[in-house]
Amino acid sequence: MKAIVYVDLKNGVLDPQGKAVSETLTRLGFNEVTGARIGKRIELELEDGLEPTAAEARVKEMCETLLANTVIERYDIELIQG
Amino acid sequence: MKAIVYVDLKNGVLDPQGKAVSETLTRLGFNEVTGARIGKRIELELEDGLEPTAAEARVKEMCETLLANTVIERYDIELIQG
Repeated sequence: MKAIVYVDLKNGVLDPQGKAVSETLTRLGFNEVTGARIGKRIELELEDGLEPTAAEARVKEMCETLLANTVIERYDIELIQG
Repeated sequence: MKAIVYVDLKNGVLDPQGKAVSETLTRLGFNEVTGARIGKRIELELEDGLEPTAAEARVKEMCETLLANTVIERYDIELIQG
């Protein structure tokens, strides 16, 4: 089983990395870009045979503990069976 | 219009960051984790009125130019209308 975790900055939180990417793209001539926000995509390999609801709860715990700084970041979890 | 770009390491490329996350999760007691890979999720705001095919081609150019190191990374582009 796989879990995909998307970690993004909460709305309203300044994203200096996104700002740098957006400004650099504009400088490179990509004027259609009006903004950019950068997030993480974490792909977790989980051992087989886990019950999906339990697995999702555990991944949520992993996010709260390590994968996301919940003061400024939010996260979404996607489970992929098989 | 929005474009979401997912940038991930190509298969076979060592992912020290993923290895560190996986090992830390195991040390924290999340023994069901057998591996982790870390990628980027870049959300680009594009000006309105762009023709989708042209917009996708431009975003591909942005990936090749700046957003992905195509020697070790691959990317996927998702356009979101509206």
